[in-house]
Amino acid sequence: MILDGKVTSKALLQEIAQEVGRLTGPTKPKLVAVLVGENPASEIYVARKMKVADELGILSELHRFPAHTEEAFLKEELEKLNQDTSVNAVLVQLPLPKQIHTERVLQTILPEKDVDGFHPINMGQLLLGIEPPALPCTPAGIMKLLDAYKIDVSGLNACVVGRSNIVGKPIMLMLTQRNATVTLCHSKTRNLEAVLESSDLVVAAIGQAHLISGNTLKRGCIVVDVGINRLPSGQLVGDVDFESAREKAAFITPVPGGVGPMTIAMLMMNTLRLHQVQQGIQVKNWLL
Amino acid sequence: MILDGKVTSKALLQEIAQEVGRLTGPTKPKLVAVLVGENPASEIYVARKMKVADELGILSELHRFPAHTEEAFLKEELEKLNQDTSVNAVLVQLPLPKQIHTERVLQTILPEKDVDGFHPINMGQLLLGIEPPALPCTPAGIMKLLDAYKIDVSGLNACVVGRSNIVGKPIMLMLTQRNATVTLCHSKTRNLEAVLESSDLVVAAIGQAHLISGNTLKRGCIVVDVGINRLPSGQLVGDVDFESAREKAAFITPVPGGVGPMTIAMLMMNTLRLHQVQQGIQVKNWLL
Repeated sequence: MILDGKVTSKALLQEIAQEVGRLTGPTKPKLVAVLVGENPASEIYVARKMKVADELGILSELHRFPAHTEEAFLKEELEKLNQDTSVNAVLVQLPLPKQIHTERVLQTILPEKDVDGFHPINMGQLLLGIEPPALPCTPAGIMKLLDAYKIDVSGLNACVVGRSNIVGKPIMLMLTQRNATVTLCHSKTRNLEAVLESSDLVVAAIGQAHLISGNTLKRGCIVVDVGINRLPSGQLVGDVDFESAREKAAFITPVPGGVGPMTIAMLMMNTLRLHQVQQGIQVKNWLL
Repeated sequence: MILDGKVTSKALLQEIAQEVGRLTGPTKPKLVAVLVGENPASEIYVARKMKVADELGILSELHRFPAHTEEAFLKEELEKLNQDTSVNAVLVQLPLPKQIHTERVLQTILPEKDVDGFHPINMGQLLLGIEPPALPCTPAGIMKLLDAYKIDVSGLNACVVGRSNIVGKPIMLMLTQRNATVTLCHSKTRNLEAVLESSDLVVAAIGQAHLISGNTLKRGCIVVDVGINRLPSGQLVGDVDFESAREKAAFITPVPGGVGPMTIAMLMMNTLRLHQVQQGIQVKNWLL
């Protein structure tokens, strides 16, 4: 069975659009994306985010800076966005050029405008089991997708492959919070195949085309593929070999059309939630 | 082979005492412990912390409050400590009485005086791979103990049993950062025995006497026992059955005399480091 991120995200986006439409205050939620340099993939991602925001009635702005922008200058620009009360949500599109220290820049964004949920205080709250208004979009999107298909992860053995700050570590915490037993694998893992063989749920987030094939998977498992890799042929594929994996898995996300659309939907949900919090509206926890 | 926390912590404490002795500035490091109520175990722990601080030349104060203290009042007292420039390090002894929300209180302590490393911003930095000056004492003590015995965890399969904010989750991150492949187990884990059987390193932090016995362990593994449980007989024992486990393990921590003394040593190290940071002295990272 396909875990369809397109269909699921569409329903979510409709809900968000309705909530935005219902807002009676003077302001609509406003999202600002900051893009440094001209990475072609980043251009596509940011453009998609802006487009979806538009469709929902969320105000959006793209602030562009040249590739040679200095860290200090970028931070000053973020400070301005922090102080601008018309801006509810700020994201810095990653990756940043080499002369800029990513973590330092991300810490400049006010935690209450941190729409990607990457600020240490928001990450720390996630670790402590306190739900911040904005959760990291990709792992939160995975949890929403599992929820949409009524997949209860409690008691499952889960394997997360990839230990990034953006996906691997936060999804590990989210799954643990929901009572899964999680093994966090990475490039130094010696027995990935053995772990995969005993895993009821696999989250692949490495960024390597077809690293995981069906023969290493447990029959009836759930496969969530976060990877988006472009083959020499131009085709987009995940970290999992879809064709062989679908033979073994009970549920599997396609690439594209799985986790990707969920990530964007969560970004919109986060924008709305940050707007609500800033308007003094209490938002409901949904994850923890 | 015994991982001797007593011997290892003694060497560490000597180093710290020397560093404190060498300080030429106007002030010595000062640690304030806050104790609410009269939990007998807490009384013992706090008294030991104060005594060790004294022996090292670290100034210490115990601030006591009655069991019926209200959260708002406790927070005000913490705010005073935040503002008191003579205080470098503040800890709130856990557990707190039921009327008090632990996480909210811990967040009141300034991150730069948070000697237990429990503030969300410090926890978040740990997650992001940025080393805060004060790391959570028990997991940091475990890493120091492993380091003292030159145990390299890179590539090992590790099993952490217990997902607390104080031990389980942070040690999971620390071990991952050092390239171990970690499985985080807990009360909802279905196949704990199978995980233990394939684990090169086991960290037991559940608080249940003798939950893990030798027959579930892999031969030649490393066992770190964080539990301190009192049997009806009055004897203190860990979460691991020491006698059967030592037959299988290559390295094992005793209870008492293993992780406990390391935890106190790390508290002292954290106090010194926070003092140094507040004096504008750059401290060296050691963990990440």
